[in-house]
Amino acid sequence: MNIYDIAKIAGVSIATVSRVVNGSDKVSEKTRARVLDIIAREGYTPNVFAQGLGLNTMHTVGVLVPDIADLYMSGAVSYLEEQLHRSGYECILSCSGFDLERKHSHVQMLLSKKIDALILVGSTYAGSGISNTQTDYIREAASEVPVFMINGVVSGENIYCSACDDRTATKEAVRSLIAAGHKKILFLTDSGSYSAQQKMKGYQDALADAGLPLEESLMLRIHKNRIHMVRDELNDLSVSNALPSFDAVLATDDTLAVGAMKYALGKGLRIPEDLAVIGYNNSAFSISSEPELTSIDSRLEDLCKNTADTLIRLLSSGKDSEEGDLPAPEPLTLFPCRIVWRQSAVCSVDI
Amino acid sequence: MNIYDIAKIAGVSIATVSRVVNGSDKVSEKTRARVLDIIAREGYTPNVFAQGLGLNTMHTVGVLVPDIADLYMSGAVSYLEEQLHRSGYECILSCSGFDLERKHSHVQMLLSKKIDALILVGSTYAGSGISNTQTDYIREAASEVPVFMINGVVSGENIYCSACDDRTATKEAVRSLIAAGHKKILFLTDSGSYSAQQKMKGYQDALADAGLPLEESLMLRIHKNRIHMVRDELNDLSVSNALPSFDAVLATDDTLAVGAMKYALGKGLRIPEDLAVIGYNNSAFSISSEPELTSIDSRLEDLCKNTADTLIRLLSSGKDSEEGDLPAPEPLTLFPCRIVWRQSAVCSVDI
Repeated sequence: MNIYDIAKIAGVSIATVSRVVNGSDKVSEKTRARVLDIIAREGYTPNVFAQGLGLNTMHTVGVLVPDIADLYMSGAVSYLEEQLHRSGYECILSCSGFDLERKHSHVQMLLSKKIDALILVGSTYAGSGISNTQTDYIREAASEVPVFMINGVVSGENIYCSACDDRTATKEAVRSLIAAGHKKILFLTDSGSYSAQQKMKGYQDALADAGLPLEESLMLRIHKNRIHMVRDELNDLSVSNALPSFDAVLATDDTLAVGAMKYALGKGLRIPEDLAVIGYNNSAFSISSEPELTSIDSRLEDLCKNTADTLIRLLSSGKDSEEGDLPAPEPLTLFPCRIVWRQSAVCSVDI
Repeated sequence: MNIYDIAKIAGVSIATVSRVVNGSDKVSEKTRARVLDIIAREGYTPNVFAQGLGLNTMHTVGVLVPDIADLYMSGAVSYLEEQLHRSGYECILSCSGFDLERKHSHVQMLLSKKIDALILVGSTYAGSGISNTQTDYIREAASEVPVFMINGVVSGENIYCSACDDRTATKEAVRSLIAAGHKKILFLTDSGSYSAQQKMKGYQDALADAGLPLEESLMLRIHKNRIHMVRDELNDLSVSNALPSFDAVLATDDTLAVGAMKYALGKGLRIPEDLAVIGYNNSAFSISSEPELTSIDSRLEDLCKNTADTLIRLLSSGKDSEEGDLPAPEPLTLFPCRIVWRQSAVCSVDI
């Protein structure tokens, strides 16, 4: 029994229930009486007690990431924490890894902390998009608190997604590689996530548009995403003749791209003359490498800002106005990416 | 009035007070009566109420970092979160920046969340070491919960520090640069923190041992720590003739070292022939750069492991055993560093 159930039974918004619980005088006596009656009957008490102890005003948001040591994730948490803290919310951070069972148990743990909302960072939480069973735990969580997804798309009530348009961005990047004369473009990923799939579709779109054949062997999924491990895995594949020949790389992450550059430099290849390389996320790795890396900017700061703004608007909508429940936020906000051109690949098209 | 005050007045350990509050039967009736009497008299109630609501078992640890987007900090949080989660503790993360007033207010906020312990990551929290007023807020916090510092050293009751021996490591690295024939070694930092000062002392130790003069102009503190900003700041100093000539760099962070390499490559210098470069932290930046960076490994994983182990032992000491209060943890555990040699500087001494 939670605030959503009470609101449903009473036929009012959760904001109205919140106002009753918080003793706001902006609720009619009739509504107040009905809501309190249902609260008493249904045994919805914990938050009332917590409120009495000043604990209901904890203003905490659960933030779940698979791996905080990853620059994309730590960047996201940095942006989110700053914006939420400014509005009086604090973050409980948890790191789940990539395994479904652990994701589920970490979400449960965060919910047990009486969080006001849950943010899931990274498209791994959206599963592969093939089966709903991989995301049922998210809809389950959304029956308790609003859930916000950063660069993952999951549909369901009370779930709000901010994502960047990976498919279009990848298509544009590959279109430029093709226009520069590359014909054997390696699509390099370490993930089967929603986002990785969107990128693969963009890669396929560009090949199809150019009338180039789709070669299975050029869509390579490797197992590691640390720079030297990527280099070594490519070397091993090359030694065992399992690596196709390629003249360009589109990697789904900057770390993979830098690993591919290390592999190429070890082979004596010149970048971009012999091998053009494009990475993803426009992270600090794209400028620490030599040559510096052309990379697709996945608009992380904007995704986080949109998430924080939406969250704060939604959670405060019950507090300020009489019946001023704002329209529900959009279930999906999509941001266009942009390509940041550096030395590892040159721009050959108008984008 | 908190658990420490109650323990002090009752003349027992905090573990014993904790046992009384948690209804353990491992306390003598006489002690139980005395503690409960003092609790009632002194008005120490919040945790008892919270306990009744199951909120005292939240097992949360406050983790404060200046900047989670920094690889050192996100690496630390990753290690800490994993180890604490495994023992049933969750982390409330907050990011304070480097300003004293904000550090203080973030610590206050975390304490208001009923955390069981506080971890401060990074030597910025230890101030410059010159004045105690910069660290009074930490001793204040330690009167409420145990405080753990990662790579910062602050003295005070209930404060436990894990640090690496930056002074010795820097001395060894500079000794190697001198043995390789370098005479103009630039000490490059962006910080005046405790750790940066230890590194500077190690630098000075090595010069003194070799009978080399200490040149003020070769100890350079710059303002930015992003790669391109470091490169540009060095370029600007060079253009305005404010940069001394140097044949080696010892940087207090890998980002600074990579920025210095970008500056050198832009000048057409060869690394390490014309300029040897040593970084700090052995982060992913040290292997994403080209040439790869010799870097001092600051033992972050070991510092975090020691912190988590000590924290869990301390917090659980009141639960399992009769009068089994373990000896208090060491106020300071110091770890030796090790230098990871790569292409940007060669090892010239036995270390």
